[in-house]
Amino acid sequence: MTRIALGVQYIGTGWNGYQKQPERNTVQDRLEIALEKFACVPLSTTCAGRTDAGVHAIEQVIHFDTDLNRPVQSWVRGVNAFLPESIVVRWAAAVDAEEGEQEFHARFSARSRTYHYVLYNHPNPSALLAKRAGWVFRPLDVERMQEGARHLIGTHDFSSFRASSCQANTPVKEMHELSIARHGDIIVFTLRASAFLHHMVRNIVGSLVYIGTGRNEPEWMREVLEARSRDVAAPTFMPDGLYFAKIEYDPKWKLPQEASAPLPWL
Amino acid sequence: MTRIALGVQYIGTGWNGYQKQPERNTVQDRLEIALEKFACVPLSTTCAGRTDAGVHAIEQVIHFDTDLNRPVQSWVRGVNAFLPESIVVRWAAAVDAEEGEQEFHARFSARSRTYHYVLYNHPNPSALLAKRAGWVFRPLDVERMQEGARHLIGTHDFSSFRASSCQANTPVKEMHELSIARHGDIIVFTLRASAFLHHMVRNIVGSLVYIGTGRNEPEWMREVLEARSRDVAAPTFMPDGLYFAKIEYDPKWKLPQEASAPLPWL
Repeated sequence: MTRIALGVQYIGTGWNGYQKQPERNTVQDRLEIALEKFACVPLSTTCAGRTDAGVHAIEQVIHFDTDLNRPVQSWVRGVNAFLPESIVVRWAAAVDAEEGEQEFHARFSARSRTYHYVLYNHPNPSALLAKRAGWVFRPLDVERMQEGARHLIGTHDFSSFRASSCQANTPVKEMHELSIARHGDIIVFTLRASAFLHHMVRNIVGSLVYIGTGRNEPEWMREVLEARSRDVAAPTFMPDGLYFAKIEYDPKWKLPQEASAPLPWL
Repeated sequence: MTRIALGVQYIGTGWNGYQKQPERNTVQDRLEIALEKFACVPLSTTCAGRTDAGVHAIEQVIHFDTDLNRPVQSWVRGVNAFLPESIVVRWAAAVDAEEGEQEFHARFSARSRTYHYVLYNHPNPSALLAKRAGWVFRPLDVERMQEGARHLIGTHDFSSFRASSCQANTPVKEMHELSIARHGDIIVFTLRASAFLHHMVRNIVGSLVYIGTGRNEPEWMREVLEARSRDVAAPTFMPDGLYFAKIEYDPKWKLPQEASAPLPWL
């Protein structure tokens, strides 16, 4: 039995989220259908983190176990042949553990997760970025948002940014990084944390936009955090600009993870 | 009667090309439906250049005549309200001619047209760039392609790159610029010419790729051009990475054209 990890890139538009469902119109369903076609046996997969409908992934990581003895590289082109073009396997790696060692697990072995939120800040929308970026037509002040974001760095109870549907054991997470950079009319938010609650990135981005437009003061972010109540933060921001970007693992697993996306802002 | 010019951006995926058709599933049809909803009367539009199914536009220019007396800016948000998100009016301008002067015409007033072709050059496809860029998995040598491209600069008979469906009066066009730049795994071809024949950009890019992979020598491009026969050049390249980027007009029209797309490679 070999454990295989795959790096998977997808555009979430048109898929009913990552996690499999009876209608089979999800990213995981399409992946498992393609894996079964390639392997000729059903394979059950585990991912690093589920994404909602409309949310994209630059590099989701999944794992599965198989008895098949095939060159590990064949899982890339072989599976891609059966996938729609909005879902692509970018790399494959065998992740067998040494004897007595903890096995690799796409979710439990993850040390941190990174998301990008891409926002288009222009009076008019862009057709080229439809479903690929959020859109705010009011001018956004990046420095104000950076000031607000500082309150979220560190270990906090993020209940104020947690969807009621969230199944996490605890609302306490460690935010390692929350950076905001402007590239012309594009603003990229980068969030890296131990883990994220359901809707956490979109709720944080929505609240930062309230600060960026001048509706709220940067200091308000601390109040929101301390309230530990979903009623205080801004509404959940649209999924269009959200990219699950990277999952960090122990380097001993030697995953051929990619440094960057083919999108120059990221 | 006022003549209005609009700058229009669109993703061509899902539309049956630019030019209107009985099924009304084209960019022009959707634009004219939206214009009619906003203006409450049918309006007939003329574009700078038609694009094929799957081809995008960063800034197509169209014009129409109207008796309506509305602030020119209202044509932007007003029409966008009735458009699908893959088609966006980016700007509007009144282009009334002085007495005795030639009228503005989106097509006939154009001095040159610029297209970009975006190519993803990587062993595996990218889900993020599906339908947004062409894909070549073999390594491409940009310098070789630049060498080949040089043969096309200037005024030539471009019959070798002309689709049989082409309705242009003459195959003789002036190529002002054909530059090729690599940005990581992305290669951008920029072509600026007096006008383009049908499929001309895609046929040129396909032929340059033959040179870039080493299949043909840069010198072969001159042979192709001199043959004046469609049988000699490479097959028409996929539409996915083609962007109608800019149309150049006399500055006297004061069109609020945009310097660049919200795509950093362009």
